[in-house]
Amino acid sequence: MKEVFEIVKAVEEVRSQNPLVVSWTNFVTINFVANAQLAVGGRAAMCFLPDEANPITYLAKAVYINMGTLQPIAAESIPQAAKSAVEFNKPWTLDPVAAGLGDTRNCIIKELKRCPPNIIRGNASEVIALANLWNLQTSQKGKVEGVDSTNTVDEAFQSAAELVKFTGGAVAVSGETDLILGNKKAYHITGGSKMLKSITGAGCSLGGVIAVFSAVTDSLTAALTGSLVYKWASQKAQKSAAGTASFQNDFIDNLSLISVDELSEYAQKHLREVNIQ
Amino acid sequence: MKEVFEIVKAVEEVRSQNPLVVSWTNFVTINFVANAQLAVGGRAAMCFLPDEANPITYLAKAVYINMGTLQPIAAESIPQAAKSAVEFNKPWTLDPVAAGLGDTRNCIIKELKRCPPNIIRGNASEVIALANLWNLQTSQKGKVEGVDSTNTVDEAFQSAAELVKFTGGAVAVSGETDLILGNKKAYHITGGSKMLKSITGAGCSLGGVIAVFSAVTDSLTAALTGSLVYKWASQKAQKSAAGTASFQNDFIDNLSLISVDELSEYAQKHLREVNIQ
Amino acid sequence: MKEVFEIVKAVEEVRSQNPLVVSWTNFVTINFVANAQLAVGGRAAMCFLPDEANPITYLAKAVYINMGTLQPIAAESIPQAAKSAVEFNKPWTLDPVAAGLGDTRNCIIKELKRCPPNIIRGNASEVIALANLWNLQTSQKGKVEGVDSTNTVDEAFQSAAELVKFTGGAVAVSGETDLILGNKKAYHITGGSKMLKSITGAGCSLGGVIAVFSAVTDSLTAALTGSLVYKWASQKAQKSAAGTASFQNDFIDNLSLISVDELSEYAQKHLREVNIQ
Repeated sequence: MKEVFEIVKAVEEVRSQNPLVVSWTNFVTINFVANAQLAVGGRAAMCFLPDEANPITYLAKAVYINMGTLQPIAAESIPQAAKSAVEFNKPWTLDPVAAGLGDTRNCIIKELKRCPPNIIRGNASEVIALANLWNLQTSQKGKVEGVDSTNTVDEAFQSAAELVKFTGGAVAVSGETDLILGNKKAYHITGGSKMLKSITGAGCSLGGVIAVFSAVTDSLTAALTGSLVYKWASQKAQKSAAGTASFQNDFIDNLSLISVDELSEYAQKHLREVNIQ
Repeated sequence: MKEVFEIVKAVEEVRSQNPLVVSWTNFVTINFVANAQLAVGGRAAMCFLPDEANPITYLAKAVYINMGTLQPIAAESIPQAAKSAVEFNKPWTLDPVAAGLGDTRNCIIKELKRCPPNIIRGNASEVIALANLWNLQTSQKGKVEGVDSTNTVDEAFQSAAELVKFTGGAVAVSGETDLILGNKKAYHITGGSKMLKSITGAGCSLGGVIAVFSAVTDSLTAALTGSLVYKWASQKAQKSAAGTASFQNDFIDNLSLISVDELSEYAQKHLREVNIQ
Repeated sequence: MKEVFEIVKAVEEVRSQNPLVVSWTNFVTINFVANAQLAVGGRAAMCFLPDEANPITYLAKAVYINMGTLQPIAAESIPQAAKSAVEFNKPWTLDPVAAGLGDTRNCIIKELKRCPPNIIRGNASEVIALANLWNLQTSQKGKVEGVDSTNTVDEAFQSAAELVKFTGGAVAVSGETDLILGNKKAYHITGGSKMLKSITGAGCSLGGVIAVFSAVTDSLTAALTGSLVYKWASQKAQKSAAGTASFQNDFIDNLSLISVDELSEYAQKHLREVNIQ
């Protein structure tokens, strides 16, 4: 598969370039996001103030915005961060955490429609909610339960397709099986571990890692690379872990020790193109 | 002991129901709180904005408010979170971290008297300070030293009793021996590990875990269950841990692997009713 | 070496006194900072609000201010925290994270010149940027790249010397080899591990640990002790660690298990006075 070649190349490029990614992300998992980004070979900077957006985006190779645990200043800084990304032409990844919950969050998300992301990563309910907040669909309804999804990945297919059409980029819907959509292409990634749901930040840090890969490759490949690496690293960690904390440690250890041979083999088995008419 | 039966039932109910708990908590230990809540089988959502209080409390089964590392918006959001909990009739747990320190914190704590918590969990000095801030006693003085207690657990007995009388719920005073008070009942829990004082967040995450149990049982049982589980998991972790970081990992691993048989046996040995005339 | 004797004494004093240190620090690594401070034997309290500065500084033995991930309130609280430290005569340590990035940060840093720190800990680019922001030099230019240095440690020598002259305290420039300057004295510390760059917060937590040591010894010895302990603990962790997460765990475990014999031996080999004319 040509995709596997591109994925391996992205993993290797990040390791040799150590791209700096600036993240605007939540307080619960900010440490996990940074350590996951560092583990795969990126460099991490985290910001909250609007006046930092321009100088740091100028220095960074990619931007990550995650909508969890907002503070009041986010109403100003997150739209500014997206604007800077677009103006400086740096690829940016959005994780619409808990989309639909609270007026502040929903206002900010609506505003982001004017500076759309290159990549969107969320669970099924968040992807559906985002497409609704951006008025890209009328039929599909979803329901976010806090940070958890009440929808299956495939229920978000149409919403994801609308988002791809609108942004021109890629959408990664994470779940038991991941669904990744790019322009006229769609993929399933199977495998992974259910233990990812027993630690906080699996989704947030995946978004951050996809942003790292977006610094060295196109949006679809970045979304595929991050998602595949997460399935591989979590499946491997589940075998060695006792409980949830050692699972998280083994998982990050695996991210820092990716074997491209193992990853290629894993991709052959778990990455499948989905037929879209 | 009938209590042990109720405790085991709470552990099992959380594992089967996976109740969603919304937490308003501090930045130092927010990740630990979430991971501890997930480890015992709950689901975690963390918030900071007042406009999120109503929609998330509606979805959640219980609420946790922790007074550490306040930001200015807390003056608005924490009273709102308590109000939502009371209005939606969701049990809520308060950790009065550093009660007495700073005007902002003390004002918020005083305001919480109008929407009292079902469960209070703190160290001895915090429990004494809380009873003073709520004018529930006149004789007892305590002194919080940052987040550390300068009082023994039993020095907080009278304050805890006043708080139980006022709230109608339960109070858990954590220390070398824990003191748990409910309506006309009091318990000591011995055992545990001194290493819990060598990692940050043992108290905060215990509050968060008690909140998880409060979603499936009464206040006193929730306070007993969380406290007992912490004594058991920490004592076990101390045996396997090298230093403080591996202690924390082993501790969380143990939370995610609770054996109800081991826990029952542990309870027989370490849980004692205290005679109160 | 007389210095080694003082370093060992500082390690032992912290373990017996358990000094309380208040930190004003960033959200990414706040948990790591607290756990590192606890691991070496200190006690940790973290604050963000201006009205907490006076009461907590009064209780604390030392203060740590770290300029990462500022929120708007920092413009008020950080200068207040420095002012309290100076007024209550508590030694304080500054980590000028990302100095030069953003107006809010630069304004605060400039304001701190009026209440100068006893100890400064940063990477080379941050130390150069700080000396520039305080107008202590005209010739040297540096460039911070997010939180990463683009300068070598020795390129910051002159800037560090100007800062020592201005503050009358000590400066620790962290890098592959550390450079520590005090009044008329300078030292190199070699060894350590490159893996410290693969986890977030090595620098931040070192600043926090130096602040702990400043509670029991003079500024130069505190800077030397923290830096040496970090080189020792990281070199040892690298030998036992698989990937980056287990490296961080082993590193903190080592901090909690410092052998003064091992540390003394390590110092003989890795601590060298630098000749300054």
